[in-house]
Amino acid sequence: MDSFSYEPHPFNLSEYLKCKKAYVENGLSMVLKGFPQNSRITDAATYALMSGGKRLRPILCIAAAEAVSTDDSAMDGVLWAACALEMIHTYSLIHDDLPAMDNDELRRGKPTCHVAFDEATAILAGDALLTMAFEVLSAAANKQRKNPVRWLRIMELIARASGVHGMVEGQMRDIGSEGESISLESLKKMHRLKTGALIEASVCSGAIIAGGKRSLLDHLRTYAINIGLAFQVVDDILNVEGDPVRLGKSVGTDKLRNKNTYPSLLGLSESKIFAKKLVEIALQALDVFDNRSDPLRAIARYVIDRKK
Amino acid sequence: MDSFSYEPHPFNLSEYLKCKKAYVENGLSMVLKGFPQNSRITDAATYALMSGGKRLRPILCIAAAEAVSTDDSAMDGVLWAACALEMIHTYSLIHDDLPAMDNDELRRGKPTCHVAFDEATAILAGDALLTMAFEVLSAAANKQRKNPVRWLRIMELIARASGVHGMVEGQMRDIGSEGESISLESLKKMHRLKTGALIEASVCSGAIIAGGKRSLLDHLRTYAINIGLAFQVVDDILNVEGDPVRLGKSVGTDKLRNKNTYPSLLGLSESKIFAKKLVEIALQALDVFDNRSDPLRAIARYVIDRKK
Repeated sequence: MDSFSYEPHPFNLSEYLKCKKAYVENGLSMVLKGFPQNSRITDAATYALMSGGKRLRPILCIAAAEAVSTDDSAMDGVLWAACALEMIHTYSLIHDDLPAMDNDELRRGKPTCHVAFDEATAILAGDALLTMAFEVLSAAANKQRKNPVRWLRIMELIARASGVHGMVEGQMRDIGSEGESISLESLKKMHRLKTGALIEASVCSGAIIAGGKRSLLDHLRTYAINIGLAFQVVDDILNVEGDPVRLGKSVGTDKLRNKNTYPSLLGLSESKIFAKKLVEIALQALDVFDNRSDPLRAIARYVIDRKK
Repeated sequence: MDSFSYEPHPFNLSEYLKCKKAYVENGLSMVLKGFPQNSRITDAATYALMSGGKRLRPILCIAAAEAVSTDDSAMDGVLWAACALEMIHTYSLIHDDLPAMDNDELRRGKPTCHVAFDEATAILAGDALLTMAFEVLSAAANKQRKNPVRWLRIMELIARASGVHGMVEGQMRDIGSEGESISLESLKKMHRLKTGALIEASVCSGAIIAGGKRSLLDHLRTYAINIGLAFQVVDDILNVEGDPVRLGKSVGTDKLRNKNTYPSLLGLSESKIFAKKLVEIALQALDVFDNRSDPLRAIARYVIDRKK
């Protein structure tokens, strides 16, 4: 067999994630260049936005776009949708960490935004990132000058997932349920709103901008809802039995805070079975797709196999 | 002269404002009906959004639309742009009042949102209103199914005016300049960002949705920038010599707080001359318009004649 013969390579997720993360972070840097110079808001927004993170939402947005794309020329726009999603995610972390909310002083091993700056600046930096997300989306649409209806569709979808029909309501319920026992159904609903809705919007908006057929969207939505929930279940499991060094944060904190979690409601081993089941449903939803959806498949498996 | 002869009626501003205010508030009620039931966020957002106010931004949006409209069928959409602007204005008031910012306990004679609810709820209610503004805009665009490009243009314009290129940066500078003396130029720039940008966006977005010609937009922009600044100058003047009963708030507070104001930098009588000059420039900018811009003219005069 000569050395030029074709050997199919198995899909390499860690390479894929690394490459897309760099792509997204480059996009975010370009967005930040549009912020005013010599501004405390710019400093705080940059600090929060560029302090690492998995970039899960923007990568899902791009992977979904690649899975359905019928229109290579629309792929440029996908990056801006991906950046907007990461900016919304970052704003939500800044506000959730505030003293009046979760009062967290560390995130990813670094002081949270209100600790590194101050509360007023953190509130405003969050407001700025949320607003800039919609500026980035509309500016990308206006610059692209085609498919305006696709952009308007994803803007409604993203706004809906981020506000009272999604993330903001989820955070309100999360705060409200602290110290109270809630049912498994309420816990699932709370996570569906708090994190699931934006993950769903990430997958769907990538697919819409890339010109994916409407018939494929329902499958992608099922995929997203299930990996979103699985992600949360695994987060709770890692808080029980994860390695604090690999995680970069303390474990056992949920129990100390008396938080409602899947392990506390279902037990640890049932929680693992539940997470696995969710990922199986997500993978089944991708059966109608060709191998361009391999990244989405690999991300689904990663969600339960991850150690951090 | 028989009683049926034609007598031109002078334009009645107070009737106009009353009528448009009711129209906007009806629109806002309809938006709030789309919020989830039994939600603390909905309660807090409703409390803040429906607690009065002049509704200046949405009324300017509608008046600008009426001044340029070439397309009656687009006027429906103007209401939703107007509502989105009022929601953004309200979110900014909720966040500005927070203890970490201006720490105000009363607004329009009622407890501020974080006093009536709590800090976490107020932060989230602000976030929800800001997000909902973009949901309302994109949903209106998607429902109207025409002129998507107009909608995308105003979304970029409104986002830009609300974030780091406008309101958020203005609020950051306002907080940063507390207790420090700043120049007249810095004070003007700060107000241009903090309040002027959204007033400009209000006027321009109404005109754009109504299908106004691009050549008219520059005139409307000049109008808006000048009445926006005049409004702020008069606010400062009223804080010196206004009637606390009519104003519904204390006077003399700026001096007590050592705030940079036009009277403190220019003196009271120079400030009055300055406000009048600004309104004259605003009125001149309307010279190219016909009598459909009478409401805009009357609003400009009202800005300096108002007693509250």
